[in-house]
Amino acid sequence: MSEPNTYPATSMLIAPGSAGIVEPKKAHFGQPFTVSCGRILPSIDIVYETYGQLNADKSNAVLICHALSGDHHAAGLHSADDKKPGWWDNYIGPGKAIDTNHFYVVSLNNLGGCAGSTGPSSINPETGKQWGPDFPTLRVRDWVESQRMLADKLQIAQWAAVIGGSLGGMQAMRWALEYPDRLRHCVVIASAMKLSAQNIAFNKTSRTAISSDPDFHGGRYHEHNTLPKRGLAIARMIGHITYLSDNVMGEKFGRDLRSGSFERGIESELEFQVESYLRHQGDVFSESFDANTYMLMTRALDFFDLAREYGDDPVKAFAAAKCRFLVVSFTSDWRFAPERSRELVQALIGAEKSVSYAEIDAPQGHDSFLLPVERYNQVFSAYMQYAAKECVSQPDDQHQPQANTEVHHA
Amino acid sequence: MSEPNTYPATSMLIAPGSAGIVEPKKAHFGQPFTVSCGRILPSIDIVYETYGQLNADKSNAVLICHALSGDHHAAGLHSADDKKPGWWDNYIGPGKAIDTNHFYVVSLNNLGGCAGSTGPSSINPETGKQWGPDFPTLRVRDWVESQRMLADKLQIAQWAAVIGGSLGGMQAMRWALEYPDRLRHCVVIASAMKLSAQNIAFNKTSRTAISSDPDFHGGRYHEHNTLPKRGLAIARMIGHITYLSDNVMGEKFGRDLRSGSFERGIESELEFQVESYLRHQGDVFSESFDANTYMLMTRALDFFDLAREYGDDPVKAFAAAKCRFLVVSFTSDWRFAPERSRELVQALIGAEKSVSYAEIDAPQGHDSFLLPVERYNQVFSAYMQYAAKECVSQPDDQHQPQANTEVHHA
Repeated sequence: MSEPNTYPATSMLIAPGSAGIVEPKKAHFGQPFTVSCGRILPSIDIVYETYGQLNADKSNAVLICHALSGDHHAAGLHSADDKKPGWWDNYIGPGKAIDTNHFYVVSLNNLGGCAGSTGPSSINPETGKQWGPDFPTLRVRDWVESQRMLADKLQIAQWAAVIGGSLGGMQAMRWALEYPDRLRHCVVIASAMKLSAQNIAFNKTSRTAISSDPDFHGGRYHEHNTLPKRGLAIARMIGHITYLSDNVMGEKFGRDLRSGSFERGIESELEFQVESYLRHQGDVFSESFDANTYMLMTRALDFFDLAREYGDDPVKAFAAAKCRFLVVSFTSDWRFAPERSRELVQALIGAEKSVSYAEIDAPQGHDSFLLPVERYNQVFSAYMQYAAKECVSQPDDQHQPQANTEVHHA
Repeated sequence: MSEPNTYPATSMLIAPGSAGIVEPKKAHFGQPFTVSCGRILPSIDIVYETYGQLNADKSNAVLICHALSGDHHAAGLHSADDKKPGWWDNYIGPGKAIDTNHFYVVSLNNLGGCAGSTGPSSINPETGKQWGPDFPTLRVRDWVESQRMLADKLQIAQWAAVIGGSLGGMQAMRWALEYPDRLRHCVVIASAMKLSAQNIAFNKTSRTAISSDPDFHGGRYHEHNTLPKRGLAIARMIGHITYLSDNVMGEKFGRDLRSGSFERGIESELEFQVESYLRHQGDVFSESFDANTYMLMTRALDFFDLAREYGDDPVKAFAAAKCRFLVVSFTSDWRFAPERSRELVQALIGAEKSVSYAEIDAPQGHDSFLLPVERYNQVFSAYMQYAAKECVSQPDDQHQPQANTEVHHA
């Protein structure tokens, strides 16, 4: 929203604490981008959003790294009648944990994504056709590299913090290793230094569901004017089950029926609430998410192994890190269990880094990192307030091209 | 093996403790079988095996109820060069927990199955075609009813014990409610009085994988000369992950690669051991198991709710039961967690029934009930020895048509 005065009525509709109406921007990088696998992308685009204002010495910028199916739209609304705010709106906004009154928040769609940044759905300039399955394999380090280029473009020499949950936490950790001078804080939420065999197994099953969908065509579904919706829906169903805890699914759905009754006993009519919910989630996702991006993201997740190049010793891996760390896990998260976060904390202690760790008692499983959880919010907010105090100058309108926050949250 | 002397050399190959070479039998029931949904099967066949010898007063018969993908072949071998023994060979045989020196063990393929008993792959005598998706919906009570008919045919008025793990445990519980005079012991292992929302969600995802496979054709794949192998493979992959614990998968596979290397980094070559394992398990299953049976079995599992007709009060449900109970759970079983068994034990205590409960510390997840676990074996053996002492007469060759156990285990 570059002209706030054209929306006089909408400010009434926007909840206090919202980052307001935000508009995605696109950064174009014309130079070739060499991917870690050795292949080259002739140029790349990165779509991103910003919330809050960059201060005079550019010391208050925070980078948000998204997870598997996330994108750049982390907070605020795209229009006044937008029904859903960004995916981390619970934690980004004025007065929230990542307080846009103090921080200039940058949130991007990862390279390889399907929300506007260069990815499998983009046109390969050399062929004039969509990349599809020929898009290069990416690793977490490639995301960090493209995020570093975005930081350079935005003239951010050092992030106040790099923050991510799940796969996003892996990016934050990789930042601490690759560019130790370029972040002061690393916030790693519901993540792990590497996936477990069970995690890989679930991802493999999801990918198999997609690749064995006859509409997948080896990833060339666009050429066949199809979409592997059935496979994507199944992948999403598996994801949803594993993002929630058994208990929270029980509380949310129990064994309630959506249709039919046991007394009538007509098989075709009987459907549990939880079945209906999953079916719906699968269908929605299969219409909106790109299958090749899903394959690429889950592969990057599987292959991430923080300490692999450090003799499998995470203490060695973190040796060069200079930032401080906040690590958060959730008791009911069985996809990225607290044990994985404790291993990370042990490694950081072994490497003599400053680390705060909170194991939050929350019933919502892995999804807790996205949801409003009081104790989590308290810990996260307190840590970020501490990080904000280090930012020398105060936010300054002159450095913020979109001065919309003043209008909506004053 | 009805003529043991024709296999003189093979007895050397059969391990001590094996039930020996066994042969499936088929029981035909010519009268119409009315299913709980009201539909009628004109006749049914039940395939079963027996191990050990029925004693003179027929008081030593034990019924084994199988789980989702099990069948009648619970112990022993089908031939001397059979590579795999029956699915519960760890616990059935001479000197084993279910000791065939004391018990006459009956193990059947459930109605609706795909290993020989009447099921969706059978010919509907009224149409001359396979039943396919038109096979009636079954509930756990239908299995109990067909098992009761088999008991009548074998002249077993009362089982020494009805025993089952997982879905098999549900059948054992239902026996205690439906035919309280016809069993002395009910052994319920790694089971639950009803599935949780998460359990249903996994089953739903598996069924969706099958039903959305274009080769499924609404269950009429035989008419199209196809098999929904892709869907079944995915269903099996999901099953396998949930039958094992995160820890045991980690120990078994870790992050070891099956092919390729991270240094070479050629994406198409890279495969984790756990991926290869799952792919293989899925492929094997998809060649051997019937998709309609899978749908039917998982629906019966989802809909089982022991106390539904008793005002959702399991104490009331068990009021009429007369047998004693052994309940066993495994600490790492997250599909049928110990909490579910504890609920069952509480209900049994509330109903003033005799119940022994063992929560076994085992790392193998739900699959523990099939695997050799020392403490589980001790508890199970001790309980069954106690049950064996109640059998008045000793096993008697005259009542056992297959006297093969003497030959191989003397």
